[in-house]
Amino acid sequence: MPVPTISWDKNAVRIIDQTRLPLEKKFISIKTTKDMREAIKSLKIRGAPAIGIAAAFGIYLGIKEFKGDDKKQFRRRLDEVCSYIEGSRPTAVNLFWAAQRIERLVSYHEKLSPSELKQLILQEAILMIDEDNRVCRAIGENGVSLIKDGYSLLTHCNAGGLATAMYGTALAPVFRAKELGLNIHVFVDETRPLFQGSRITAWELLEADIPATLITDNMAAFVMYQKKINMILVGADRIAANGDTANKIGTLGVAILAKEFSIPFYIAAPLSTIDIKTPSGDKIPIEQRDPGEIIKGFGTQTAPSRIQVYNPAFDVTPAKLIKGIITEKGIIRPPYHENIQKIMK
Amino acid sequence: MPVPTISWDKNAVRIIDQTRLPLEKKFISIKTTKDMREAIKSLKIRGAPAIGIAAAFGIYLGIKEFKGDDKKQFRRRLDEVCSYIEGSRPTAVNLFWAAQRIERLVSYHEKLSPSELKQLILQEAILMIDEDNRVCRAIGENGVSLIKDGYSLLTHCNAGGLATAMYGTALAPVFRAKELGLNIHVFVDETRPLFQGSRITAWELLEADIPATLITDNMAAFVMYQKKINMILVGADRIAANGDTANKIGTLGVAILAKEFSIPFYIAAPLSTIDIKTPSGDKIPIEQRDPGEIIKGFGTQTAPSRIQVYNPAFDVTPAKLIKGIITEKGIIRPPYHENIQKIMK
Repeated sequence: MPVPTISWDKNAVRIIDQTRLPLEKKFISIKTTKDMREAIKSLKIRGAPAIGIAAAFGIYLGIKEFKGDDKKQFRRRLDEVCSYIEGSRPTAVNLFWAAQRIERLVSYHEKLSPSELKQLILQEAILMIDEDNRVCRAIGENGVSLIKDGYSLLTHCNAGGLATAMYGTALAPVFRAKELGLNIHVFVDETRPLFQGSRITAWELLEADIPATLITDNMAAFVMYQKKINMILVGADRIAANGDTANKIGTLGVAILAKEFSIPFYIAAPLSTIDIKTPSGDKIPIEQRDPGEIIKGFGTQTAPSRIQVYNPAFDVTPAKLIKGIITEKGIIRPPYHENIQKIMK
Repeated sequence: MPVPTISWDKNAVRIIDQTRLPLEKKFISIKTTKDMREAIKSLKIRGAPAIGIAAAFGIYLGIKEFKGDDKKQFRRRLDEVCSYIEGSRPTAVNLFWAAQRIERLVSYHEKLSPSELKQLILQEAILMIDEDNRVCRAIGENGVSLIKDGYSLLTHCNAGGLATAMYGTALAPVFRAKELGLNIHVFVDETRPLFQGSRITAWELLEADIPATLITDNMAAFVMYQKKINMILVGADRIAANGDTANKIGTLGVAILAKEFSIPFYIAAPLSTIDIKTPSGDKIPIEQRDPGEIIKGFGTQTAPSRIQVYNPAFDVTPAKLIKGIITEKGIIRPPYHENIQKIMK
């Protein structure tokens, strides 16, 4: 299995700079909360589970230099740092999930001194890496039960190893299928505007020696029409209590095409991606990104500078289009509202 | 109205090099049939109606230097040149339509000498420009009847002025709506891999002062979901006798989304795009293009060099997804098989 996306290395967080892929496999060291926020915002690290872990480390980096024993001041600083990190990207719930987890940890251990709490927060962030690895492996195990020998799958964006600590969500069942010796093939949507599919997923599949074919997003319909796809597997950035799922822009289109061609459409995500406080998809905030990503992506200008641009980073797929949600605790099936409540208990 | 896409200028064909848009408005002179074939193949000139005209000029350039009075030899040379030009791109039927038109013209005037026939072919090519202008204007007039004040339209690829001699097919009703003072807005799919939407359609709409918003192809579903689209208008590269329509890759996906969201989906194309000899869409040959267009589009590498790529230039939209086909002789409605036969008489 591939490179670790994020790890703790003495005094810094080590991440692979995903904006450089596939041309360069470059690791960078992040030493401040400001740099971590920037790394999340600029997608050097991305993918809902991975940015949850990045957020935890980012919070640690923000309180690491805190001096003194004043618990109230420490708590105030912690709140500031959490809000600061949470402000990096609004859609992925794992960011908020990680911050809440740290805050709860601190509340639970209110008797500890700031310096002890700092250590605890670092341990928690490191623990989240191990947890993520276990969770992703379980998703792989649960998801592989859906994949038959000879299957051709389609995926959108990157929910591979690099979207998590190491093993991936949507790609975890694919990696597991490969381990089990199944013959599989993956069609990869390139995923405009930031090409996470062609830059990252294609690269991961090549590294794992899994047969893959790259297409542009607008080819997915024709590939399905030609009966080349048996199953669709994508990740998630936030799942509402009713099963509506926010994921990379373009996912909704893929789900509608899957319905037209009667192809099963699955989400794979850890339970940390489920946000039971958000009742339905229309309540999920959708991040709008810079028009420059579309007009002049990766340095090449492909549109007039003056053109107006709409650039939502995510869309929402209604629960009714989702055949199942593969989690570490099993596959959630409709009715989602009921079954999500059950699994979250 | 915009620049002429193609014109005859003393001894050469003058075209705007569409691969340079929107950064550069560069005209080039084409003096040989080889250069014309290359210009069609490399998309310097593109769009079904425009390449029909380009083919006619390309044929003229190929027989222009023919010496002597031997009619049989002339005819043999003409056949060679037609096949050579037809081999440039397999899907757009207008290429074959133009070649057949020239061949029929020559057969009809079999008594004329090679030098007289050469002159006749040139006149025919020039005539096709005027005809195209009339046809596109009529498409605009027929199509504008479907557009209401305040409408927001979506288009895919470029079926604008630059896909024809000057006025466009899918954009002709849009340009006409603007002339009539209607408030309209156009969402433009960027159209990967070659960005004809963002490079050409966006540019044309800006030049015509028509409010437009650029999106990536995979945003179309979300934009429709948000109820931002009243109508979809696209061009065609070949329409089969049953109404199945080949158009730029991605059109099929847009048509399926339109069905999901109950948005009327229209094709706009001249009758020359209808190929009554092709009974249905599955019989239309689909051009496969170079993987480099996807891996390293416009000089920027966005995928690993070793990744396998599928790059069909077109897809086929089944007739059942098409609300109407706007032509110069009126709007064809289902049942298409019957009504196409009627209008072609």
